[in-house]
Amino acid sequence: MSVLVVGSIGLDDIKTPLEEQKNLLGGSTSYASVAASFFAPVNLVGIVGDDFPKEHVDFFRAHRIDLAGLQVVPGKTFRWSGEYMWDLNTRETRSIALNVFESFEPKLPPGYETTPYVLLGNIHPNLQHHVLDQMKGPRFVIADTMDLWINNTPGELQRLLPRVHMLILNDSEARLLTKQTSLIKAAAQIRNGGPAYVCIKKGEHGALLFGPEGQFFSCGAYPLEDIHDPTGAGDTFAGGLAGHLASLDHSTVTFDSLRKAVVLGSVMASYNVEAFSLERLRTLTPAAIEERYQLFKRMSQFEVVM
Amino acid sequence: MSVLVVGSIGLDDIKTPLEEQKNLLGGSTSYASVAASFFAPVNLVGIVGDDFPKEHVDFFRAHRIDLAGLQVVPGKTFRWSGEYMWDLNTRETRSIALNVFESFEPKLPPGYETTPYVLLGNIHPNLQHHVLDQMKGPRFVIADTMDLWINNTPGELQRLLPRVHMLILNDSEARLLTKQTSLIKAAAQIRNGGPAYVCIKKGEHGALLFGPEGQFFSCGAYPLEDIHDPTGAGDTFAGGLAGHLASLDHSTVTFDSLRKAVVLGSVMASYNVEAFSLERLRTLTPAAIEERYQLFKRMSQFEVVM
Repeated sequence: MSVLVVGSIGLDDIKTPLEEQKNLLGGSTSYASVAASFFAPVNLVGIVGDDFPKEHVDFFRAHRIDLAGLQVVPGKTFRWSGEYMWDLNTRETRSIALNVFESFEPKLPPGYETTPYVLLGNIHPNLQHHVLDQMKGPRFVIADTMDLWINNTPGELQRLLPRVHMLILNDSEARLLTKQTSLIKAAAQIRNGGPAYVCIKKGEHGALLFGPEGQFFSCGAYPLEDIHDPTGAGDTFAGGLAGHLASLDHSTVTFDSLRKAVVLGSVMASYNVEAFSLERLRTLTPAAIEERYQLFKRMSQFEVVM
Repeated sequence: MSVLVVGSIGLDDIKTPLEEQKNLLGGSTSYASVAASFFAPVNLVGIVGDDFPKEHVDFFRAHRIDLAGLQVVPGKTFRWSGEYMWDLNTRETRSIALNVFESFEPKLPPGYETTPYVLLGNIHPNLQHHVLDQMKGPRFVIADTMDLWINNTPGELQRLLPRVHMLILNDSEARLLTKQTSLIKAAAQIRNGGPAYVCIKKGEHGALLFGPEGQFFSCGAYPLEDIHDPTGAGDTFAGGLAGHLASLDHSTVTFDSLRKAVVLGSVMASYNVEAFSLERLRTLTPAAIEERYQLFKRMSQFEVVM
């Protein structure tokens, strides 16, 4: 089955302690769509200016991503410039230019409204609402968010929660949203607000998944020797997760299928940070995904059947 | 089989954001010995002053810890006072008084020299060397260390590495010791210096285990809702780990038995932080250990056999 991915598409300038690259393909939709496309057909919803390089459109097409929802309008594409500190864990936004993204209204082309799986990338909660308003009974809706919306549009975000099945956010955002230091308490509080499932990302330390009836899963992070560019790790994670769910032939999503989805999301993110922008995803193969998935399996097993 | 535990025994004053308690049983040997005693017989080596409360000696005895190696000398017992910051992740030492610990020379009583398993708690590397000088062919030696020795006695510590089978340290200490930011590279470098196994503790984020031929295990942390006192978590972890190894009937320690040992160490640490000092270990039962071990198992499983 298909997954609808909505969010930003942009051109990034990225500086790490070792390297600087400009005019890179970026944005949450780009990362999430391409990651999801390894598992399931993707319907993309986003906006770019008429300066958006054709090669990036071709790249999406090569991944069989449906682009009926890609709006190309006169003007400049969204641009972001960021710099990572020495440990690659903290970053500073150097500049941001919304450009055509400022007037983005995610309008679904005919046929998209019945997509069973929906990934609402990290955009203004009102845009996320607007997408859901157009959907017809989606099977599973995942929403991503960030500190900006938690601080600036808390009401809109709270109203979104009962409309989604799963919220993905990182540990500091979960604490900010709930004013709880314990992630367990934070997840329980978010679940009380609506979503049956909460996934808390802990960066290099993995991810936690919380579900109904106290169900809990802890996914260790794949230990990387060389991280080149952390940009898009969270979006790639969400995309891989959503793509795996959409690839299943189940009529309902279960906690057990979500466990595997979290691991596959982690696998995708672990590959993505090995190179700038989406470069590593260009050469990634299903065999490599399976290989690292097996590695995750081995590295987290502690009762080995001899 | 037995495990020999050597390190400090002290009386602690501990302040957390919520509570302050004084004159508590503390020290690496106290935590590690009691944790190990849940799995195997323990031979304790340590020193206390003649002010050391009899109730603590009785507590060790109740755990069937052999106290032939406990030196009781005229003077005051080692004292430590510390305060935890709001998130319980950082602490400040408010005062430290070595007292009788200053003249500690870990002399093994007859019979201790053939103990198969050895846990060298976090003390001066020269004292750790001194213990090993007295041992006769131990089967498996585990050493703990800390930033103090990495900074002040790097030569003595480096010379210790080839004499131990496993080094336990936390992530910041591993980075400090090796000048590597990647924990994978740090572990590889430490293993090159001698120990076949390296265990890197990541506090609330779990622990990583590295072994020969690229063997790797990632143990997630048990997510605690309420941490009351993090003191001794690392020592309890090491004690549980060493105790489990000693309980096995294997002639050699394998990577697979170490995986389970790391999980059981994590289980012991997760209980220990639920109350001040060693209070939680007083009421802990084998059934509760097994229960949380099963919980660790469930929370880290992602391919569920239906």
